[in-house]
Amino acid sequence: MEVRTTGGAAAVAKDTRPTLHQALEQWTEALGASNVLLDRQNLQAAETATFATSQTVPAILRPTNREELQSCMRIANRFRIAVYPISSGKNWGYGSRVPSQDASVLIDLSRMNRILDFHEKLAYVTVEPGVSQAQLFQFLQDHQSALWMDATGSSPDCSLIGNVMERGFGHTPYGDHFAQVCGFEVVLPTGEIAQTGFSRFSDARTGPVYRWGVGPSLEGLFSQSNLGIVTRMTIWLMPAPEHFEAFFFQCNRHDQLGPLVEALRPLRLHGILRSTVHVANDYKVLAGIQQYPWQETDGQTPLQPELMSQLRQRLKFGAWSGSGGLYGTRGQVAEARRAVRKALKDKVDRLQFLDDHRLAFASRFAKLYQFMTGWDLSKTLDLARPVYGLMKGIPTRQPLASAYWRKKNPPPSNMDPDRDGCGLLWCAPVVPMEGEHATTVADLAGQIMLEYGFEPSISMTLITERAVACVISICYDRQIPGQDDQAMACYRHLQRELTERGYYPYRLGIQGMSELSGCDGQGQLVRAIKSALDPNGVLAPGRYDAQ
Amino acid sequence: MEVRTTGGAAAVAKDTRPTLHQALEQWTEALGASNVLLDRQNLQAAETATFATSQTVPAILRPTNREELQSCMRIANRFRIAVYPISSGKNWGYGSRVPSQDASVLIDLSRMNRILDFHEKLAYVTVEPGVSQAQLFQFLQDHQSALWMDATGSSPDCSLIGNVMERGFGHTPYGDHFAQVCGFEVVLPTGEIAQTGFSRFSDARTGPVYRWGVGPSLEGLFSQSNLGIVTRMTIWLMPAPEHFEAFFFQCNRHDQLGPLVEALRPLRLHGILRSTVHVANDYKVLAGIQQYPWQETDGQTPLQPELMSQLRQRLKFGAWSGSGGLYGTRGQVAEARRAVRKALKDKVDRLQFLDDHRLAFASRFAKLYQFMTGWDLSKTLDLARPVYGLMKGIPTRQPLASAYWRKKNPPPSNMDPDRDGCGLLWCAPVVPMEGEHATTVADLAGQIMLEYGFEPSISMTLITERAVACVISICYDRQIPGQDDQAMACYRHLQRELTERGYYPYRLGIQGMSELSGCDGQGQLVRAIKSALDPNGVLAPGRYDAQ
Repeated sequence: MEVRTTGGAAAVAKDTRPTLHQALEQWTEALGASNVLLDRQNLQAAETATFATSQTVPAILRPTNREELQSCMRIANRFRIAVYPISSGKNWGYGSRVPSQDASVLIDLSRMNRILDFHEKLAYVTVEPGVSQAQLFQFLQDHQSALWMDATGSSPDCSLIGNVMERGFGHTPYGDHFAQVCGFEVVLPTGEIAQTGFSRFSDARTGPVYRWGVGPSLEGLFSQSNLGIVTRMTIWLMPAPEHFEAFFFQCNRHDQLGPLVEALRPLRLHGILRSTVHVANDYKVLAGIQQYPWQETDGQTPLQPELMSQLRQRLKFGAWSGSGGLYGTRGQVAEARRAVRKALKDKVDRLQFLDDHRLAFASRFAKLYQFMTGWDLSKTLDLARPVYGLMKGIPTRQPLASAYWRKKNPPPSNMDPDRDGCGLLWCAPVVPMEGEHATTVADLAGQIMLEYGFEPSISMTLITERAVACVISICYDRQIPGQDDQAMACYRHLQRELTERGYYPYRLGIQGMSELSGCDGQGQLVRAIKSALDPNGVLAPGRYDAQ
Repeated sequence: MEVRTTGGAAAVAKDTRPTLHQALEQWTEALGASNVLLDRQNLQAAETATFATSQTVPAILRPTNREELQSCMRIANRFRIAVYPISSGKNWGYGSRVPSQDASVLIDLSRMNRILDFHEKLAYVTVEPGVSQAQLFQFLQDHQSALWMDATGSSPDCSLIGNVMERGFGHTPYGDHFAQVCGFEVVLPTGEIAQTGFSRFSDARTGPVYRWGVGPSLEGLFSQSNLGIVTRMTIWLMPAPEHFEAFFFQCNRHDQLGPLVEALRPLRLHGILRSTVHVANDYKVLAGIQQYPWQETDGQTPLQPELMSQLRQRLKFGAWSGSGGLYGTRGQVAEARRAVRKALKDKVDRLQFLDDHRLAFASRFAKLYQFMTGWDLSKTLDLARPVYGLMKGIPTRQPLASAYWRKKNPPPSNMDPDRDGCGLLWCAPVVPMEGEHATTVADLAGQIMLEYGFEPSISMTLITERAVACVISICYDRQIPGQDDQAMACYRHLQRELTERGYYPYRLGIQGMSELSGCDGQGQLVRAIKSALDPNGVLAPGRYDAQ
């Protein structure tokens, strides 16, 4: 076993080999030998992301409950070994399972996967970090619940808590995940326990129903940080509406993005659109439909705008394509439909509304429908169905396939981008919800990425009433020599140009955390808190740039 | 000047007189003599709340900008003098301006009252702590803005930031104040500066539009705490809806509360009611209409349920009266009106909808209207108008008059409950939004308060989709000997019984903070953070029980 250290956390011993050996003995005693993984295959898999990394993982610990996790942390402190917790490790594009600092022992929480509480009337569920999207979805089905979860478009296997802690988002009115949770139980770096909100009082009846509690509100401290490990969380669920309807639209020209955002903002601000609206450019849509068009391009990359334009016309999708959901009583949905139609008139070239009934109908009569409406349904429906489902909180595996965009073989049934050498780097700037800012980011990404030889695959999510989260994917084939470096150079260039214009990311992968370094007052404050809570600096050093 | 110390903060010097003298010299140099108040009249006023307190205030500092405030904190640290910041000091019922620990120097932020930024399209305003509700309301009027603020029902003069930091609430869809803010600038206890969210980057364009930023989210740390002084905050505003309509309802019997809450919950959870719904019992409503009925009771207190029942019938209001707002397009409001009507059928004895048009009409034709509908409009309209306004974000002075409930003289035009010897203690438990819990609290408060000789004046606000914030007022006349003690004993008894049943408060006054003491894991965590950020323990020791 190779063990290296970087200079990051001064508190972590320089030569960890002898102490690591002792720590492993104690961890094995605490968890049992089968839950301390040391074999090369598992470690190598854990050291592999969707881009080049050099961090090694000397061991993987798999606690099964909070008490075992506490023991893990106490032992880590005793020997000053850095540890890095993951929930399900599906953080693709941001680092997968790879720790932010070299030689960190991985703590895999996926065995802590109990659903601890569920309340149909008050619409919440309380879960451990190993609970996946698919697991909760199945649980709600099994209980014939009238509640909908919110799902992120990553993978059914990704952890609910993991996504919340990274402040991910979904597609229903509960799409801003971090705003819809409360009552955390946290294992602190020292192994002690804390609870947030009213859950701090063991006899409180309001732990799962009210976020702020009494006294300071501490949930935010544990998101995108290395200040504690969340072992329990209440997630609010939405009651299924009386009626649901989705709308899909497309713009034929790229320069329609600005006016489109301007038209959508009032709908979001006025609460006519209560959920995130998702807008994707042509490259993004194409990657959702198929792999790279190797034939049409004679194997050349990147896919140039001219050919992209031809493909768009052939496959009948727009320069920008978008979708959103309407939730409520039949009357409310009808009213929202009228408002959307009015706002998007002259802003989009196509606008289509879809509900369960029409979707079933269209699926049966796709050809006839196309003849009647001119709307090419077969391809559209294939793409629309998972997006439509996401707006109802149904997890889907479909978007993951786009990680195989530049591969020569089709995605396997058991997709694993880390294992399969898929190259993926995500860059996720936030912009104010104004046409001008959205256009600037789209233009900038388009220009820089083509220069570096990658397709500018962009989605823009109207994540709140005032902000748009852009997700720019740098997608490539890791098996082609030089591509790892080229992609990382592209990422750094893009990230720098974006922040120079004031567009900071909503989230960072391990590839970008050090770039936030020391440029502000918050950094100092966070470091002071980090020292107080983690005196030995053992928990995820380097994560979001806090040592 | 009398200076005493309690044993609270060990770090604060025991005999502060010599050091206080030196500190005052430096504060005077920093702020100018006119902004260091030492006269008995001002100090005595600042030492006076709406209940008995023993804390003395040796001086009041009035910085005019962030730099002066930073100097104040550096000097406080130099001499280890405890300081206690207030925004406008209108924290009636929770301690007014009185510090949580004796001998704390008051820092009055009311001169920092600039509106720093305003964006009509993205619907936000950025303010300093001295900006009051009335000031923002006037500002929006002056700018002919189509945006509505949310107002709390306390006083037009109360500070926006002060209320947010205590996690107060209002009556529009932006009623959960702490959820509608971002981009804090904070002066830390040491005098250093930190910003939260994207505001940490001076060139970010998204500071005022997206809350979470990147890295840990720290806003919660500074609410209901003593970890920093917020000197700038962005508050989101709602665009005026196309149509607004209020509904008012009443239940004749007390036991209708449970079914009422059960009927309202689905409306909140389904987003048909997007704002807080406010339900008040008969005692609360009466205190809003008039002072204590000294004549009918022959000067006896408390007002017994039997007489209350007679007054209710005479004045035509219910055992429970409630109100809520409907916001949206005309079609959305009409749809919500239908849903409310359907849900409250058989649950309430009266239900009335009111919009601007009908309110103007009713005001002109009150008598005729009463004849036609049987609804007693004159009294109702007097009570309804300010409540109606609050649902549109218009601050009102009216609810403050109820602090004079037990006084023998009518409220003066320049009401000041501290100065006028109004006794007021607020007890604010949160319960899950279920009929059973709301009923338990109402019954318990009714029983305990009458035993102690006070009227159980109760409001229940459906503050979020899942929680009800109850506000129970202990209202008395401080000028009657013995009443201060009696009221405090009642408060303690009530608070204890409530927390024993799992109903913890959403907010605490200085009278109740020590009761949270050391019963949980969060306390320890907060103390560790407090030590890290405030090594000399100078900022508001004892506030929310953190030393």
